[in-house]
Amino acid sequence: MPNKVYIATSIDGFIAKKNGDINWLMDIPNPEGSDFGFNEFMNSVDAIVMGRLTYEQVLKFSEWPYNKPVFVLSSALKSVPEFLNGKVNIIKGNPKSIIEKLNSMKYSNLYIDGGKTVQEFLKEDLIDELIITRISILLGDGIPLFSKLINDQKYEHLATEIFNNTLVKSHYKRIRNK
Amino acid sequence: MPNKVYIATSIDGFIAKKNGDINWLMDIPNPEGSDFGFNEFMNSVDAIVMGRLTYEQVLKFSEWPYNKPVFVLSSALKSVPEFLNGKVNIIKGNPKSIIEKLNSMKYSNLYIDGGKTVQEFLKEDLIDELIITRISILLGDGIPLFSKLINDQKYEHLATEIFNNTLVKSHYKRIRNK
Repeated sequence: MPNKVYIATSIDGFIAKKNGDINWLMDIPNPEGSDFGFNEFMNSVDAIVMGRLTYEQVLKFSEWPYNKPVFVLSSALKSVPEFLNGKVNIIKGNPKSIIEKLNSMKYSNLYIDGGKTVQEFLKEDLIDELIITRISILLGDGIPLFSKLINDQKYEHLATEIFNNTLVKSHYKRIRNK
Repeated sequence: MPNKVYIATSIDGFIAKKNGDINWLMDIPNPEGSDFGFNEFMNSVDAIVMGRLTYEQVLKFSEWPYNKPVFVLSSALKSVPEFLNGKVNIIKGNPKSIIEKLNSMKYSNLYIDGGKTVQEFLKEDLIDELIITRISILLGDGIPLFSKLINDQKYEHLATEIFNNTLVKSHYKRIRNK
């Protein structure tokens, strides 16, 4: 029952500028309108877990981009807009209890999204697959993808794909000592 | 006259553990004894600029690994061991003046090495090529490859090579607006 991260970062590991700006990410030339494998990835998950900040970013998009149930981690949020009824659920708890709850609802393959949420799940060593797309820029500052861990975590490199000769997408799988 | 960085980092961007430990890097299986393209890279440079800490790490190796002149950045260091006479030179100054000095000595293609030294040259936007090899591990803490920059820096992705199905080496070239 893998928990997966699928995220883009700068070469120096930032997912957004300090003010949340991701224009550097949106500005990537994409003449063929590729989704860089995102739909294929989405087909591999049953549900999405994201933090409130990420949810609020996505709300600004012109349309709701997900065709899988989204669970927003928040103790503050009380409701979602009517058009998201049945699509977005509010959930709270620690990473482990959230995974258990979603697994018991038969959501086995989870997409864990959002900077802080990813960090919290990584801290508990609950991420099984990391799919990281490197954008060819040094931001120099911003919101980091990674934060401190208690122990190091070894991964197996499954594959790396290059898109538009500029994006480097690497797929890693956590190696767990049985 | 490109200044190049050639370095290995963890997925989360560390070049060593806090105590300088790079065993996680040395432990990579390498059945064919590949140099992962290092000799080819070394043939592309005329001289190496490194910080004192990196120099002291390299001194611990069983043999001196470089066949190009090495310039160690240090104001404290006064001399080098006799067996390194003619191979290692001590140099001081800011990044720009060092590049000018070496260029005037006909060293045009410089390999800039060592965490702090790389950061100082990046801060001054003096790096033209970044060759970064990602190791499939999250260290969670350690000595970071990158530090804060005043402005973002865009790069062109030249190529990515995979070694032993585990190392991901990406070659980037700085895009400069003329």
